[in-house]
Amino acid sequence: VKHESLIVWTDEPLNAETPLDLLCRAPVTPTELFYVRNHGPVPAVDLASYRLTVGGLVGRPRSLTLDDLGRFERVMATATMICAGNRRDELARVTPIPGQAPWGPGAVGNAVWGGVRLRDVLRDAGADESAGHVAFTGLDEAAEDGEVVEFGGSIPLEKALGPDVLLADEMNGEPLPPEHGHPLRLVVPGYIGARSVKWLSTMTVQREPSANFFQSRTYRILPPGSSDPEDGFALGELPLSSAVCRVERLAGGIVRARGYAIAGGTRRVERVDVSVDGGATFATASLAGEAQPGAWLLWEAELAAPAGTTELAVRAWDSAGSTQPEDPARLWNPKGYANNAWHRVRLPAASS
Amino acid sequence: VKHESLIVWTDEPLNAETPLDLLCRAPVTPTELFYVRNHGPVPAVDLASYRLTVGGLVGRPRSLTLDDLGRFERVMATATMICAGNRRDELARVTPIPGQAPWGPGAVGNAVWGGVRLRDVLRDAGADESAGHVAFTGLDEAAEDGEVVEFGGSIPLEKALGPDVLLADEMNGEPLPPEHGHPLRLVVPGYIGARSVKWLSTMTVQREPSANFFQSRTYRILPPGSSDPEDGFALGELPLSSAVCRVERLAGGIVRARGYAIAGGTRRVERVDVSVDGGATFATASLAGEAQPGAWLLWEAELAAPAGTTELAVRAWDSAGSTQPEDPARLWNPKGYANNAWHRVRLPAASS
Repeated sequence: VKHESLIVWTDEPLNAETPLDLLCRAPVTPTELFYVRNHGPVPAVDLASYRLTVGGLVGRPRSLTLDDLGRFERVMATATMICAGNRRDELARVTPIPGQAPWGPGAVGNAVWGGVRLRDVLRDAGADESAGHVAFTGLDEAAEDGEVVEFGGSIPLEKALGPDVLLADEMNGEPLPPEHGHPLRLVVPGYIGARSVKWLSTMTVQREPSANFFQSRTYRILPPGSSDPEDGFALGELPLSSAVCRVERLAGGIVRARGYAIAGGTRRVERVDVSVDGGATFATASLAGEAQPGAWLLWEAELAAPAGTTELAVRAWDSAGSTQPEDPARLWNPKGYANNAWHRVRLPAASS
Repeated sequence: VKHESLIVWTDEPLNAETPLDLLCRAPVTPTELFYVRNHGPVPAVDLASYRLTVGGLVGRPRSLTLDDLGRFERVMATATMICAGNRRDELARVTPIPGQAPWGPGAVGNAVWGGVRLRDVLRDAGADESAGHVAFTGLDEAAEDGEVVEFGGSIPLEKALGPDVLLADEMNGEPLPPEHGHPLRLVVPGYIGARSVKWLSTMTVQREPSANFFQSRTYRILPPGSSDPEDGFALGELPLSSAVCRVERLAGGIVRARGYAIAGGTRRVERVDVSVDGGATFATASLAGEAQPGAWLLWEAELAAPAGTTELAVRAWDSAGSTQPEDPARLWNPKGYANNAWHRVRLPAASS
């Protein structure tokens, strides 16, 4: 069920990203072009016996069928999914990162998700709102360090009780495809994709973050030189990032570039800058539409590229008054996560 | 009432920062050493006639005396105040920034604030929770562009309804001093200091951000070359930042450094890195205590400084997987706000 244009890093489990020239053609990424990041085989789910359990620090533990979930208010939301390893390739060029897929900037996509609000389900179960965290597991299993582990992770309860976190059964107006979590996945806007657990099976309200492998052992920023998860910190909320999807030369020494920008958490993209002189000067890009937390903004810029110009760089600014770091070498970390350095692409040769 | 050690940029209005060697001696900054950023003279407030009005999109407009405020639940919270112009000096050394005080890294302080929750007062007034923003004005007036304007600004209603925003009448266990907003100031943890309006007079629930000069005309990040506020975006949530307060040489070629780190919004400081080789390698600093959103963390590091080492740099990482940009030149903006580049200090000469 994967599109022939996807760039496939591994077939089983399927890990594939969207080619850049197809990525930024429209604000909503077509489902068949949407990147896939799986840690194990797609589980076979029997809909008749499927249950979502809600447990831990709740007054009314639940075991919900899909019909039960249909009793909650139905909502739609546009949100971007982005892999924590997006743009790992640039880090791996600084110092190799063995055993990790060298994702380019296409492990990202924006979709319209349909489902119910996580907070409605948590409140129905009488979640203790001072608990701290909600842990999730999916039905998928992965082979990690020689053991089979179930996929899981957690988010702060404060985030889980926000209006934007969904239990989604629909993607771009159709039922979720198997590789995107059918019949139900979490959608956590503004967080790394790994927290949007697919084939969702259990939710547990608890005091501490999840002890699951994918929260406590990986998806962590480690200092260079360390391989001990205890030395690192867990990823959750996304850093600000941006990328160039396409660049072309127009007449008169003008260059036109397009791409995406995404801020994490509840921050918004406020400005996108492009430079053809290595950051000495920047031009301000036009943004397509209104910035919303949790969703990317596409941008476009036309600027003069003097003779000899060979490279275009992009960076964004967000509503926290922050912009991106310049150099991926300064962001290198052992697992190659969260690269949000300026994105640089070579300009096409000038026609002569 | 200002401490003789403060570094005074202007006397009237008073603008003064804390010397670095006094700044990081304890997690809580003594009130008399706390930086002061005022835009006009300290207003004389008559406590008997003082009222805080709550209006706009509220079901029950209020005009509250200090006694009325005493009916709400009393809370205490530790929060850091930081000026949007903190560390402007480094930007001004790149390209001059006329008419703006060249704050160093001491326009920051951490205090224990006592008062009532803003959300309790907003809910008592029946605020429309879908409104969007809350605008505030203080009793102070400033001369700006040849006109006298009242000080004001706004924050998103979502932030205002959080548990952490206070109407404070106490600072470090004593009544607020006049220069810090007596009898009542807003305390907005994780936001630029300018949003923590002092001598608080009015609160207005409204659809749009404040049109006040200090929200719509200044405290904005403009692109280099522009002086039009419309080209910029308003500051609110803070960027991640850090600074070195003190560095000393110990025996055996070891250097010891201390300083602060602060993340904005609801993010937390996760790691602090120090380098004596210009960022080629970093040592991990020890953090004093638990990271909490809205409050700084003090850090300390000891690392070997090889012969010839002349400079120490610091950067922090936050819970959004972000670290700070390297070069202040890349962050230069016309008003000189939000400099969160790596902070660099010269090492003291080695004894020989």
